[in-house]
Amino acid sequence: MNERGYQLLQETIERLLRRNAFFHLNKVLNKTHPADIAHLLTLLNERSARSVFEHLPDKEIAANVLSELEPGFRSGFLQELEVNRLVEILSVMADDDTADLLADLPEERRQEILGLLSSEHTEDVSELLAYPEGTAGRIMTTDFLVLPKTLSAQNAIQEVRKAAEKEMVFYLYVTDEEGHLSGVLSLRQLVTAPDYTPLEKIMTQDVVKVNVTDDQEEVARMVSRYNLLAIPVVDHSNILIGIITVDDVIDVIREEATEDMLRMAGTSGEEISYSSVWKNAKARLPWLFASLIGGLIAMNVIGAFGSGFGNHIAVFAILATFIPVVNGMGGNVGTQSLSIIVRGLATGRVDGKSILKEVLRELEVGLLLGITYGVLLALAGLIFTGDKYVGMVAGIAMCVNMTLASVLGTFLPLVAAKFKVDPAVASGPFIATSIDVVGATIFFMIAYLMLI
Amino acid sequence: MNERGYQLLQETIERLLRRNAFFHLNKVLNKTHPADIAHLLTLLNERSARSVFEHLPDKEIAANVLSELEPGFRSGFLQELEVNRLVEILSVMADDDTADLLADLPEERRQEILGLLSSEHTEDVSELLAYPEGTAGRIMTTDFLVLPKTLSAQNAIQEVRKAAEKEMVFYLYVTDEEGHLSGVLSLRQLVTAPDYTPLEKIMTQDVVKVNVTDDQEEVARMVSRYNLLAIPVVDHSNILIGIITVDDVIDVIREEATEDMLRMAGTSGEEISYSSVWKNAKARLPWLFASLIGGLIAMNVIGAFGSGFGNHIAVFAILATFIPVVNGMGGNVGTQSLSIIVRGLATGRVDGKSILKEVLRELEVGLLLGITYGVLLALAGLIFTGDKYVGMVAGIAMCVNMTLASVLGTFLPLVAAKFKVDPAVASGPFIATSIDVVGATIFFMIAYLMLI
Repeated sequence: MNERGYQLLQETIERLLRRNAFFHLNKVLNKTHPADIAHLLTLLNERSARSVFEHLPDKEIAANVLSELEPGFRSGFLQELEVNRLVEILSVMADDDTADLLADLPEERRQEILGLLSSEHTEDVSELLAYPEGTAGRIMTTDFLVLPKTLSAQNAIQEVRKAAEKEMVFYLYVTDEEGHLSGVLSLRQLVTAPDYTPLEKIMTQDVVKVNVTDDQEEVARMVSRYNLLAIPVVDHSNILIGIITVDDVIDVIREEATEDMLRMAGTSGEEISYSSVWKNAKARLPWLFASLIGGLIAMNVIGAFGSGFGNHIAVFAILATFIPVVNGMGGNVGTQSLSIIVRGLATGRVDGKSILKEVLRELEVGLLLGITYGVLLALAGLIFTGDKYVGMVAGIAMCVNMTLASVLGTFLPLVAAKFKVDPAVASGPFIATSIDVVGATIFFMIAYLMLI
Repeated sequence: MNERGYQLLQETIERLLRRNAFFHLNKVLNKTHPADIAHLLTLLNERSARSVFEHLPDKEIAANVLSELEPGFRSGFLQELEVNRLVEILSVMADDDTADLLADLPEERRQEILGLLSSEHTEDVSELLAYPEGTAGRIMTTDFLVLPKTLSAQNAIQEVRKAAEKEMVFYLYVTDEEGHLSGVLSLRQLVTAPDYTPLEKIMTQDVVKVNVTDDQEEVARMVSRYNLLAIPVVDHSNILIGIITVDDVIDVIREEATEDMLRMAGTSGEEISYSSVWKNAKARLPWLFASLIGGLIAMNVIGAFGSGFGNHIAVFAILATFIPVVNGMGGNVGTQSLSIIVRGLATGRVDGKSILKEVLRELEVGLLLGITYGVLLALAGLIFTGDKYVGMVAGIAMCVNMTLASVLGTFLPLVAAKFKVDPAVASGPFIATSIDVVGATIFFMIAYLMLI
């Protein structure tokens, strides 16, 4: 459905709600894809959204809608939902989706709900929840088809037919008697094989797999690199314990890209626009506070130099007009370096180990850019102030500043990655503010040495 | 394969190359996944990379390696490749991958190669190349299985077996006599259906599809929203002309995220770190130039105010120390707004139409943040300068500045999106520089009015 489609759907639903035409509402919802209903809920006002959710045709559809809701919107929506209704819906939801949803709830509410689910479901879900957020274990499903390696192709086809209600089946994972992952075959390999061949003769033995404790970003990279539709998850003794399907991997890729982009801009990593203005502001406040502290330091550094200029206050005033351009260019070049490295680390293009190589390369780039714009600024300074020394000071400061900013924008995220901290946390505001402080110091120091 | 795996592979390959042990090299490459060979090439020095590529076991593997190579690295690598060798490899490459690869080549070389390929291949590839870059038509494959709706389930299974060499089959698209898309069924639906049922009885008629001219981002959103493994592509009269598989969609999602992130930081959208220092610098130069112009304007604005202060030059000097903090905070808050909107537009969370709503919300957030930090800066100003008026001026300027920056960071990308320009082009440096100019003007204007 495209934007126009959603608009029409929204209008229809709102009209039916106004008229209390619940029979028609039910019919329309029954014909609408759960993913579209999930998107629709975010377009409606809160009261209408709740009303639509209450009138979903059955709990299976409700479960699918909840699974498809964006996390940022969902956590608010779930808070208002009655526990009994939620338990009813969760009882038909897949393990991995249930775990994902419960992870968003406050601890107390989560425990209450886990106590009300069937004991089998509770056990499976608790197992998934035991893996830390962001690991393969947390996003895998334990509900999938496994075939013993001695089974014949013909019997395997029977198994597939019977398993129609399980997770989407594209790859069939084959295990030995102890449950160790021994091979994989595609549904296509299976249907094209002679009837009585045992699976171990047709399966591929070299299986691409991930460990249950692997980072979800690593999982995404593997699935993307090898163009897979699903990837098996094993524990430390190679026992097959779950699979991760490509649709969940796409969600991971999107979430991680969102997180990187927002963190780099200095907000909390989750999408926050659904929530209130206050929450939105709160997510951005801390980074801005760090930035304020940096700015105040820069202010005092400049002020100290200003006093140092004593009788040359007029020179100082002229120099001060250069602050925005010198700082701004430094901040921009630093942010460029930062983005290139953070994205490179995310796509696997940049190897987290070759810090020196990357820093040296950016040093060269920064120097090249710094000299270019340093010369331009020196000329501009000469033209605008008529004083060749002022222009030269500003030009040199800008060159040093831009070079340093490139190095800093490369070095900080790489070091963060080395210590397993999210490299995006070395955010743009942090780099820009550091450059403000360091840049102002360098600028006025050079000025002090050359002009006074 | 993980980082350690690549390191071992690289060492092995380099050792074999040094010893000219081409027989062993061939054996190792034959056991390595083409995607891993593609990654390996980026780790080796240029001479070794070329040597490995020359010693690939066969042209099918070479075709897969070229398909998996990252675009940024590939275009440089292809330049040095002999035309005959390339034609030989392309002859066994899928249409969509061939088109993707040829699109990277200079026009002249592309025509030369198209002239040397088989006429059928040339025709298919030229057809794909006729669709503009970034559309569904450009990334679809025309090589897929279609079944007539009157076929029986049993006969359809035979067709699937025969089509084993085609694109990965997960969904079977069903058409009427004229080739119009009439339904879809999964391989699982097919194998679980009674033998003699015609496909039109078991197929799902409501097919999620895209138009050949749709934007690839729209394709990615659809596949991601409906958790699809492939999506059919139709022309304007609903004739089925291609399919797009999820692995290509993952590439689109990654590329678009990379593009957004790099553009927002003010570099060209492609990953550039493989290329030379000079190319890297060149991609960043133009945005920095725009930033320089902005900075020079800010400089002259401040300078003009400076002259206006006349005998109050000491006050001006004190005010100047506030420039970094006022500008920096504005730039940061603007970049935050920008990132939130650009990412929201990419994930489909923000509706490109509700400009006013989004701007008003950000206005509130900006005001809230602006008041908070304005008060803090006013207090800091009082403490550091001992002058309550200076602090107040700076505080008011910062509040106005931050509010304006939030609005600008929201408004510009939304307007860009409305006019079908990539919203990420309203880049961070652009916002930050605008704020430098506008912010400085506001700051000194308020100061001028209140202090002189």
